[in-house]
Amino acid sequence: MKRHLISAADLTRDDAVLILDTAEEMARVADRPIKKLPTLRGRTVVNLFFEDSTRTRISFEAAAKRLSADVINFSAKGSSVSKGESLKDTALTLEAMGADAVVIRHHASGAPYRLANSGWIDGAVVNAGDGTHEHPTQALLDAFTVRRRLVGRDAGLGRDLEGRRITVVGDILHSRVARSNVLLLNTLGAHVTLVAPPTLVPVGVENWPCEVSYDLDAVLPKSDAVMMLRVQSERMNAAFFPTEREYSRRYGLDGDRMARMPEHAVVMHPGPMNRGMEITAEVADSDRCTVVEQVANGVSIRMAVLYLLLGGAEPAVTTASARTEETK
Amino acid sequence: MKRHLISAADLTRDDAVLILDTAEEMARVADRPIKKLPTLRGRTVVNLFFEDSTRTRISFEAAAKRLSADVINFSAKGSSVSKGESLKDTALTLEAMGADAVVIRHHASGAPYRLANSGWIDGAVVNAGDGTHEHPTQALLDAFTVRRRLVGRDAGLGRDLEGRRITVVGDILHSRVARSNVLLLNTLGAHVTLVAPPTLVPVGVENWPCEVSYDLDAVLPKSDAVMMLRVQSERMNAAFFPTEREYSRRYGLDGDRMARMPEHAVVMHPGPMNRGMEITAEVADSDRCTVVEQVANGVSIRMAVLYLLLGGAEPAVTTASARTEETK
Amino acid sequence: MKRHLISAADLTRDDAVLILDTAEEMARVADRPIKKLPTLRGRTVVNLFFEDSTRTRISFEAAAKRLSADVINFSAKGSSVSKGESLKDTALTLEAMGADAVVIRHHASGAPYRLANSGWIDGAVVNAGDGTHEHPTQALLDAFTVRRRLVGRDAGLGRDLEGRRITVVGDILHSRVARSNVLLLNTLGAHVTLVAPPTLVPVGVENWPCEVSYDLDAVLPKSDAVMMLRVQSERMNAAFFPTEREYSRRYGLDGDRMARMPEHAVVMHPGPMNRGMEITAEVADSDRCTVVEQVANGVSIRMAVLYLLLGGAEPAVTTASARTEETK
Repeated sequence: MKRHLISAADLTRDDAVLILDTAEEMARVADRPIKKLPTLRGRTVVNLFFEDSTRTRISFEAAAKRLSADVINFSAKGSSVSKGESLKDTALTLEAMGADAVVIRHHASGAPYRLANSGWIDGAVVNAGDGTHEHPTQALLDAFTVRRRLVGRDAGLGRDLEGRRITVVGDILHSRVARSNVLLLNTLGAHVTLVAPPTLVPVGVENWPCEVSYDLDAVLPKSDAVMMLRVQSERMNAAFFPTEREYSRRYGLDGDRMARMPEHAVVMHPGPMNRGMEITAEVADSDRCTVVEQVANGVSIRMAVLYLLLGGAEPAVTTASARTEETK
Repeated sequence: MKRHLISAADLTRDDAVLILDTAEEMARVADRPIKKLPTLRGRTVVNLFFEDSTRTRISFEAAAKRLSADVINFSAKGSSVSKGESLKDTALTLEAMGADAVVIRHHASGAPYRLANSGWIDGAVVNAGDGTHEHPTQALLDAFTVRRRLVGRDAGLGRDLEGRRITVVGDILHSRVARSNVLLLNTLGAHVTLVAPPTLVPVGVENWPCEVSYDLDAVLPKSDAVMMLRVQSERMNAAFFPTEREYSRRYGLDGDRMARMPEHAVVMHPGPMNRGMEITAEVADSDRCTVVEQVANGVSIRMAVLYLLLGGAEPAVTTASARTEETK
Repeated sequence: MKRHLISAADLTRDDAVLILDTAEEMARVADRPIKKLPTLRGRTVVNLFFEDSTRTRISFEAAAKRLSADVINFSAKGSSVSKGESLKDTALTLEAMGADAVVIRHHASGAPYRLANSGWIDGAVVNAGDGTHEHPTQALLDAFTVRRRLVGRDAGLGRDLEGRRITVVGDILHSRVARSNVLLLNTLGAHVTLVAPPTLVPVGVENWPCEVSYDLDAVLPKSDAVMMLRVQSERMNAAFFPTEREYSRRYGLDGDRMARMPEHAVVMHPGPMNRGMEITAEVADSDRCTVVEQVANGVSIRMAVLYLLLGGAEPAVTTASARTEETK
């Protein structure tokens, strides 16, 4: 595995399966009396957020703390970064302060790549969402969620998602989640279909390893999982966007549509949901909707990613020293 | 005791005395060489603040950290919550991330109740102030402060405040502190008198377990403790509010008025004080004013509440394992 | 050593050398497998910031966490402080909450002095920058950086900077960094020369223990270290300020100027740099520029200051208990 996690495309199938399997171990930590591992004690994880994203930030924060790392939150708002300090100087500063990992969220596509590949930083860089580009830990937690639901927790043979049919619905054009999911799910052997209004499909999608459809109702019966993307209200009412009513009618998931899905199929959403827009309350609250599991799985995936990238001084979950921590 | 702390009305006398007695033990932790207990190691406390309140937030943060819990601060400002995410979805998210306790401050009265009683969350919910409704930990720390001052630290027999006369002065109408105090002090057997401008007394106060007076000078000589409420400047100059000068003259506490109180009686204030408005500097800085003790007691009370609600994996303060922590 | 660190002028030469030597030990912690000391476990450090300063805040935060202290960040923005609470009441609140150290950044010169010398607070007060007055930990990290570069890491005899010639260039008038550096470097026996546009030299500079020059090119060949101050863009275009082009031409450091410095001399900058203004990219990225080391050294210095002021319950770095922590 590489030293950084910038793009889902960087992960081989072996890498991805290793992360998913490690996350499975991490998920068990939540069942312990002391829900904490000593693995990253003395390590510092910096959350470098150029955009507000409370959910993603606290998910990484919870993950790092559960591994006993120290966490420093660095919101670029109001800092010298916003006064024109270059990304390079910010990077050199964090490196000099001893950051072992920098979790970066940035409005500009490519910023995490620059941070990781310019030699400014020795620590691990984790992309927590860059522009409309990628959000690899979201794709990993989605894959983890599908595997747990469709295959079970003890799968772990690496071919778990082979041939599964995953449908991603919504504003593909602006979605880093969609892009990362297409790449990762393809690596894991799944078949991905994108469903979107024609104006919200990116140019060049014919080179993506997936199919494109404009007819949600036709695709649903052939889907093992349907991922509904969040409609971002700030994009609504733009010329390329359907009206709310039109969007909801053609691309929203309601009870009738959910009934067209195979019985075993699940509904996913990265959150936060716009109930009544891309998903009805009935679907959001049904047992088939995994939105809450996705949040819990996000912490496990981020623990796994930080653990694997930082290679803690102490061994992983299942070893004697971890057991000692558990009982002491 | 219930699983949540939403209202002072939820506490039986036994509950309240248990919290006060536990807080007494917690206060002793501050005298140790290592001012920390391992009790809540591995537990996560989320401070979910929909309103700024630095004092309350850092008091809960200090309390949780002194019990070795991990603390995650979630300010709703700029988060998806402010973009219209429902309280339900926020709650499900925090639950999924493994929050063992959610400390909530909300501008809407009733929000903590909804959070606690809708089945969204397994963890404990602690009300850190909701609208004009309640602020139960403030009432507990006030009761703790009165008990320590009037009865002494080693009281602990549960009838300590029986018959004590507590006067609460100020804008009762908008005060969650007043409401919680009336309820809790009554439970503990004290007699409460409210003193306020007529326009700042809530409708229905005749059903509250207390008396109402408009004459501060008449009440002072019969008071064992006088709680001055903060005048919130954003409410000043409203039609229902006296002028500043009028307010200060009739309801402010100065040295002359303090001299009318019995010698043993104390002056309380939840802070921050408006010196010169509801309290003069002379009174604020006198030995009889407990405002600073109240802050210190607030940390002890919040430690006790978190400890009792979360029932740490390790036993409480006085046990062997705690002693080990102390000496190791 | 005093109980607080307010001004570089408070430090005797012995104090300053003790801090530098302790920082040298602290710097070695970064080389350990577990980059953490148990020294300040159970202690609480409050970062009380009345001005945004992410770099300084996270440097103190990293330092405190590396010593195992609990850190509480208190940004005065949006708090009751900004609603008119007095510094006194804020101080009493933090004291009551059990703050063992308060690191204060304030826009008003003298605020840290008031905090430390009014009897409001028992804990240690550390000045993290007040108005245009002082920034003593910056001066300490600068001295530490010069010593490491010019003398080496194992010097430690206290006369290391005796006779060294340090030049400080830029807006001296508004610079707390310059003032603290002049005081500390003089205490350590170095010779300081200030170079600035005439309008940016403070009145009364003739009483400072340093020389003043308006001719950078003449001073460079006689400098062992050149500290470039940051040009603060909010001050630009004021009547007393040269134009950008003029400033850069006369007081900026470029490759040609750097070539006039002795071979062993170093270039320093407190960061963040304005590349192209007071320093060119060529100089900023050269091996002679210590800007990144200064950041790393800042953490070591702040660890040393917190350690020495708080006198941890457990002994310092080199003892058996620290070694136990390291290997356990």
